[in-house]
This record gives sequence, structure tokens and C-alpha cells, in this order.
Amino acid sequence: MTLRSLTRFSVPLFNRFLLHNKTSVRCYKPRRALMYVPGDDTRKLSKAFKVDVDCIVMDCEDGVAMSRKETARNTIRKLLDNGKPLKPRDYDWAIRVNSVHSGLLEEDLRQVLTAEFLPDTILLPKITTVDHLKYFSDQVNNSIKDEEQINLVMYIEDALAMINLVDLCKSAFELSKTSKFKLTSLIFGSDDFCASIGISRSENASEILYARQKLVVVAKAYGLQAIDMVYIQYKDLEGLKRQSDEGARMGYTGKQVIHPNQVPIVQEAFLPSQKQIEWASAILNAFEEQQKIGKGAFNLEGTMIDMPTVKQAQNIMNLMRSV
Amino acid sequence: MTLRSLTRFSVPLFNRFLLHNKTSVRCYKPRRALMYVPGDDTRKLSKAFKVDVDCIVMDCEDGVAMSRKETARNTIRKLLDNGKPLKPRDYDWAIRVNSVHSGLLEEDLRQVLTAEFLPDTILLPKITTVDHLKYFSDQVNNSIKDEEQINLVMYIEDALAMINLVDLCKSAFELSKTSKFKLTSLIFGSDDFCASIGISRSENASEILYARQKLVVVAKAYGLQAIDMVYIQYKDLEGLKRQSDEGARMGYTGKQVIHPNQVPIVQEAFLPSQKQIEWASAILNAFEEQQKIGKGAFNLEGTMIDMPTVKQAQNIMNLMRSV
Amino acid sequence: MTLRSLTRFSVPLFNRFLLHNKTSVRCYKPRRALMYVPGDDTRKLSKAFKVDVDCIVMDCEDGVAMSRKETARNTIRKLLDNGKPLKPRDYDWAIRVNSVHSGLLEEDLRQVLTAEFLPDTILLPKITTVDHLKYFSDQVNNSIKDEEQINLVMYIEDALAMINLVDLCKSAFELSKTSKFKLTSLIFGSDDFCASIGISRSENASEILYARQKLVVVAKAYGLQAIDMVYIQYKDLEGLKRQSDEGARMGYTGKQVIHPNQVPIVQEAFLPSQKQIEWASAILNAFEEQQKIGKGAFNLEGTMIDMPTVKQAQNIMNLMRSV
Repeated sequence: MTLRSLTRFSVPLFNRFLLHNKTSVRCYKPRRALMYVPGDDTRKLSKAFKVDVDCIVMDCEDGVAMSRKETARNTIRKLLDNGKPLKPRDYDWAIRVNSVHSGLLEEDLRQVLTAEFLPDTILLPKITTVDHLKYFSDQVNNSIKDEEQINLVMYIEDALAMINLVDLCKSAFELSKTSKFKLTSLIFGSDDFCASIGISRSENASEILYARQKLVVVAKAYGLQAIDMVYIQYKDLEGLKRQSDEGARMGYTGKQVIHPNQVPIVQEAFLPSQKQIEWASAILNAFEEQQKIGKGAFNLEGTMIDMPTVKQAQNIMNLMRSV
Repeated sequence: MTLRSLTRFSVPLFNRFLLHNKTSVRCYKPRRALMYVPGDDTRKLSKAFKVDVDCIVMDCEDGVAMSRKETARNTIRKLLDNGKPLKPRDYDWAIRVNSVHSGLLEEDLRQVLTAEFLPDTILLPKITTVDHLKYFSDQVNNSIKDEEQINLVMYIEDALAMINLVDLCKSAFELSKTSKFKLTSLIFGSDDFCASIGISRSENASEILYARQKLVVVAKAYGLQAIDMVYIQYKDLEGLKRQSDEGARMGYTGKQVIHPNQVPIVQEAFLPSQKQIEWASAILNAFEEQQKIGKGAFNLEGTMIDMPTVKQAQNIMNLMRSV
Repeated sequence: MTLRSLTRFSVPLFNRFLLHNKTSVRCYKPRRALMYVPGDDTRKLSKAFKVDVDCIVMDCEDGVAMSRKETARNTIRKLLDNGKPLKPRDYDWAIRVNSVHSGLLEEDLRQVLTAEFLPDTILLPKITTVDHLKYFSDQVNNSIKDEEQINLVMYIEDALAMINLVDLCKSAFELSKTSKFKLTSLIFGSDDFCASIGISRSENASEILYARQKLVVVAKAYGLQAIDMVYIQYKDLEGLKRQSDEGARMGYTGKQVIHPNQVPIVQEAFLPSQKQIEWASAILNAFEEQQKIGKGAFNLEGTMIDMPTVKQAQNIMNLMRSV
């Protein structure tokens, strides 16, 4: 992939990778918009690869009826055997398999992991305990070749997973030391989460603020992307924009989308605004001046500017230079 | 009890019990409204049993002055010796004892646990550490007969308890494997909690959102009921309704009440609304159609409907059928 | 120090100390306003000691440019060698050193800890793991005399620290049993925290509510002061007042300030209001009446008053008596 597509907040993570592992940088996949396509729908699948989107998810799970699971698996397998479709810019080629407790995962993974070409990423839904991760790790290690590696994205979508969240991240990192997967992102599966605590989600989602913000903090503590909930009223693009901006303000780096029309709004929301760029630029200019004359914290139009503020400004400018 | 009185969000829990243990289902106690009555006030006690309420709490703790603790104990003991008063529908016959560190608990439990009839449930206030639970477990095991069992409801009402919350739940489940109690619910003791962090609670309680929402997530992760705070302005029924609805939207399954007039409003708030029932019904009808033609996720009037949404709808309809 | 300057919510903590250790009470340092002064700026430093503020922080970290670190250290060392400047009332004489990972801490601590007089308190920024605390503990133990002790204030200012917060507090208490420091407070370093999760903070800080409220709960669980974020628009005193009040309502006991003009507003915000005092007084009067006639919970103008409410009232009155 090129650096052009790096998401808004990937820069700190990116810098961290730079220090340790130059290869990882080249593998970095932005996921501002993560678009679901039913794995059994060849028409929608072929249309999806024409959309300019960071991440395409070929779905085997909730978007596919029970009677169509086999069809979805076979359709996706055929695509994998043909290799990753080329697009004007690189993207994340991903598959959402069924959950560990569905009874469908073993066959899902067998088809995916023995294909001619591996996808970039597997999205594993409904993880709640460390045992789910161990099961996944074993399946991956038994099926893919030694030199290969695959990205893992974990769904956090019930109360128990939310409680076990830190342990799940620690365990994934521990397992990946000797396994062939690498955890890159957490997805907030808000609708399943709401079902698990017995509620319906409201428009502003204030009733799940604790969960929504905890997920961001844990993700960032472990250098992971945080992917926000689906906006299901897919015809309401204003509502989508409002919720996307809200997620970005909280620290989410991307959002799940269920319709191509949602993509540009979401990918825009996870880039810095013109105002933020001007703000960042002014701060960095002033900072340079102050450093020359040996001052640390300084004031700019009545606001005290110190190192954390300068760092935020740097993040914004680095990203904009990349895109 | 009959299924008629199951609370709004008990269905997932109920289903879980169904899978494992048919007996537990019959013991399931809804606690939409949990009404306190001072244990030393025979007039209020006898009136309480005429109220149509899910749970009656005969109080030995904060509702009883220090000089009246002995009277409360003796009054409650006499009631226990006479057996559970009959009411048109079954209810939870509960006692709030004093806390472990009060110095009063040993005598409270001696009187309660050696009575002719056991109450359904003991409410244990001001639990902060696992040691409190061990103490309680020992007292119960030494006092009640082998074939008997009693429900435990834990109050979470200070900062340390909130920090230790997951450990407290795990420990209660561990202890109950070899003990004669079963943890069923967590109560958010918001006023003591506010005192412990040095604040006064505001009308909308936004300053304790973290604590209020964390309690729900932990409760649901362990299949427990979550009981919301007291609305102390007991003459303000509109305010009560607002706060009850808010709690229900967050996932609380019930609420503490301090006056019989609060009961119907609270019990209503923890049932699904007519709008929710219509919504659920429409979704389930559409889902059945779509399953027939082999589709998973589908759209209904511009909204994407997938499995989590279908599950929420099923919860609502199952509950309404029960009541 | 005199009791006059005790902060609003220190009373419960104060009472706890009273039970265990009379000496600690005399050492108790209120930190309603915690004012930063660049350690390399002798003019600002000498002005700072004329301000009536609970805590003066001579800064070696973000307020000092990299090229001025040496100057800051030497300036502070000279002040320490001269002894604590007298002021009309006692105050907390504190130093913010550089972080463990800055490479500057060893020399900072060498200068501070070998001075003729120790400061009251060291503020340690950017702590994220228990190893940072161990490093600090070793440095302190090797440098200061056996009979001396120093207060530690920890900055929590990134996502990982927020995740590790309980462990950090536990570890600090464990280490301090055999070390010469005592953890007294947690500071919410909100701007660094925002940078660490890739966001810009908004005016009402709703996007970091989880972190801001979690810090309070953990602090209070361990009997620590909780110090709220900086209000950086130092000319906007109304905004400062709004944010200070908001912090106090959440349970914060103090706030970082960056300009002397901010001090009186902040110190006022962390005292109880006239309305709260009247409320507390009314409750305590009524409570005394009710206790005489043997009642526990009682109602006062339509509001149910029980022990937690009485305790809150007592906290307020005890504090006001002290100041």
C-alpha cells in the first residue's frame, strides 16, 4: 500500500512501527471505512471492488442466511483462488468468518486458509474469552504456510468481552509471538453488545458511552485501530456524518459501513478538518520560533501551548503530508 | 412465581437458565421494583404486603436507627417464623441486613437464618472486598440446612467496590459452588457511592455515568440483574419516571423504591413500550419472510436488519408473551 | 500546615488518617489549585511564592525547553538549598521532574534529592507501567536519608496508564511500605492523554468522560486526591470556573493551573457552596432530632434522608469548620 491512504490517527502507531520493524509499515492497512458485502452475493461482491474504500469485508456471518453459508464459503473461496483484485490504490482484503461458538468456523477457516491466495485480514466475531483466541490461533497455525501471516481483527460485541477486553488483547499479543496472525484492530459490535445487555440503542448512543469509550482506550493502549459501530439507517447520510464525527472525536480510527454510499462520508470523517490543519500549522510555526529562543511552554493567542499540544499538531501534519 | 411477572430484560437470562437447570427457572425472581420497608415498623410492614411489587425488602440497615436495630431484628424474625405472606402473585421476600463492618451482621444473620422459614433473598450492603463475601458464605453455610438455598444481592456502593467489581462477582460465583447462596443481582447504591467519592448527586447523575454504566456491563457479563439507584424525591413522580426510563435504556432491569407510590411507575418503566413491541413484531415478521427466501441481513424501511437486531426483537416478544 | 486550608473533600481521607496515624495528618497537603511555574524562570518563581495557592510546582518538564533543562535544575537546586520560602499559610512545595523515559530523570532526581532541604512533593509525569515506579522508588531510597519521606504525585496521561491505573496504585502502595515515598494524588494529564488516543479535546471534554471519571473512582478507592485537567485558555475565567465546577461535581479535589489568575477561581470551586452548606446544616439538624426519637431514615421536605446523605452533609460541615 502507499502512504496516501493512511488514516487520520495512524501516525503515532506508524511511528511506533517505524522504530521496531520496517516490514510492518509496508503491511499497515488503514481501515477508515470497513465495508461489508454478503459473501454469497456475487453481484454485490463484484460491485464492491469498484468502490474506493479502505477495507472490503466479504461476509460469511450475520449478512448471510443460515441456508446460504455453504454458498458464501464457496463464492469467497473462488475469489481467493483468483487472487486479490487490483484497484487504483491498495486496500484491505478481508473476510468476516463465523464465530467460534457457531459451529461454522472450522469449515470457514479450512476454505479460507487453504485457498491459493490468503486474504489480508480475518475478522473474528463474538470473541468473549481467551479460549476463542487459542482456538483461532491453532487453526491458523495448522493451515497456513510458515512464511505467511494474516491480520486479525477482533469484534467486541457482548458484555463479557467488554469485561475481558484487556485480557483478550494481552492474550492475542502473547499468542501472536508464536503464531501466524497479528492483531491489528478492535471493532465495537454495538448492536450485539446492546442485545447482550438487553437494550435498544438510541440515536446518540449515550446509554453505551462507557463501553464505546473504554474500547478506544484499550485499543490505543495496545496500539490498535478502533473501529466504531454501524450506522444502520443507511439512507440518512446526515445522521451518518454526525455519528462518524462523534466517533472520530472519541478516538475511533474508522467505522463499519453497510452500503457504498456511506463510504465517502466515513472516510472523510476520519481525516483531519481544514480547521484542525490550520490550527496544527499555526502551533508548529510558533513552536519552532519559541524553541529557537529557548522557551518550552508558550502562549499563542491566550492559550498555553506545551508538548502534548505540539504532538497533536505534529500528528495531524504528518498525516496530511502522507495523503 | 408465575412467568407473568418476568421483567423486561430477564428473557436472555431466563433462556440461559432453561438450557442448564429447569429448577432455577422456577426460582427466578424478577426485581423491577425493589421496595424498602423499615424492619422495625410493623404498620408499614403489614401495608407493604398489600402492594403489588416484585420485591419487598424488610430493612435492618440504613432505614433503621441504631437504637432500633434490635426491634427490627425481632420484628423480622417473628414474620419469618410465620412464613411468607401470600399475595395474588408471587414476589421476592427479601431482607437487607447490616454490612460486614457494622458489627451487627452476625446477630442479623443468626436471627434470619435460624427462623422457621427462610426469606427468598438476602441483600448485603457495603461489600467492598472478597473477604466480606467469604464471611457471608461461612455464616450461611454454618446456619442453614443442607437442602436449602438463599439468593444473594450485592450492593456496590463505594469506590473500592466499583474497582473490585469483577473480582467480587467471580468470587461470589466461585464461593457459591460449595455454598448455599446464589448471587442474582447487583444494586447500585449511588448515594453511598457519591459520599465515598465526596460528591453530591445531581438530577441527571451525569457525574457518575462511568460507575452507573460499568455496573450494568459487569452485571450482564455475569448474567445478573442490575438494580438502579433510588429516586429520593418520592413526591416527584415525573422525575421518577424520567430516571427509571433512563436506567432501563442503559440496561438496568429494576430500581430501588422507597415509597409504595413509586412502584407502579417503576414496574411499568422496566417493561417494553408499545412502540418497542410494534417494532419487534414488524422485524420478526419480516425476518421470517426473508429466511424463507434464504436471505440473512435485509433492509426494512431503509434500515439494515441483522441477527443482533432480530435477537433484540425476540427478547421483547418473549417477555410480552410471558406477562 | 494548618487545618484552615483543607480541601473540600479531604475530610473522609483526613478522618481515615486520624484513625491510623496522627503524624500523617500534620503532613496532609491540600492541592485544590496546583500551580505550575517554569523551573528556569527566576522572575516567575519569585512571583509564585507571593500567590495564595495550595501547591506550587517548580517545573522541569513540559514547561521548560530542552535547551533550558540544565538551567531549570540548577535554579531549583539553589531554591532547595535555601529552604522552603515562608508564606502566610503553609503550602505544598513541589517539583515536577521529567519522565522516566526522558533520559533526564536521573539527573533531575540527583539534584533534587541531594539538596540541603527536600521539597514536600515530587510530581512524576508519564508513568505507564509498574517498572517506572520501581525505578523511582530505587532512586529515592538511594538518595534520601532514612528519617526523611517525600510525597509522590502520579500523572496518568496516556491510554496504557489508564488501563494499568489500578495496578499502578497497588504497586505504589506496596513499594511505599519499604520505601521513602508516599503516594498522595493522581493527576489527569488530559492533553497528553488526548494525544495518546489521537484526538483533540473539546470544550466540554465529553469524548474523554470514561477516562476522566475512571480516574476519580480509582483515586477515591485508594484514598488519593484526584487532580483535574488544565484549562488552557487562561484568559477565559468563566470557562475555567465552569470546568472547575464540573470537575468538583465529579469528585475531583483539585485542578492544575498555569496562571496565577486562575488560582482563586479554582480554590473557590473546590470548596462547598453556600447552598451546600445550608443543605448540610438542615440535614444534620433534622437528623439529630430524628435520632432522639429513634428513627433511621426520615423525610425532609419530601426527600428521603438516610445515612449516606447524612454522611455527605457531615463531610461538608467538617470541612467548613476547618477552613
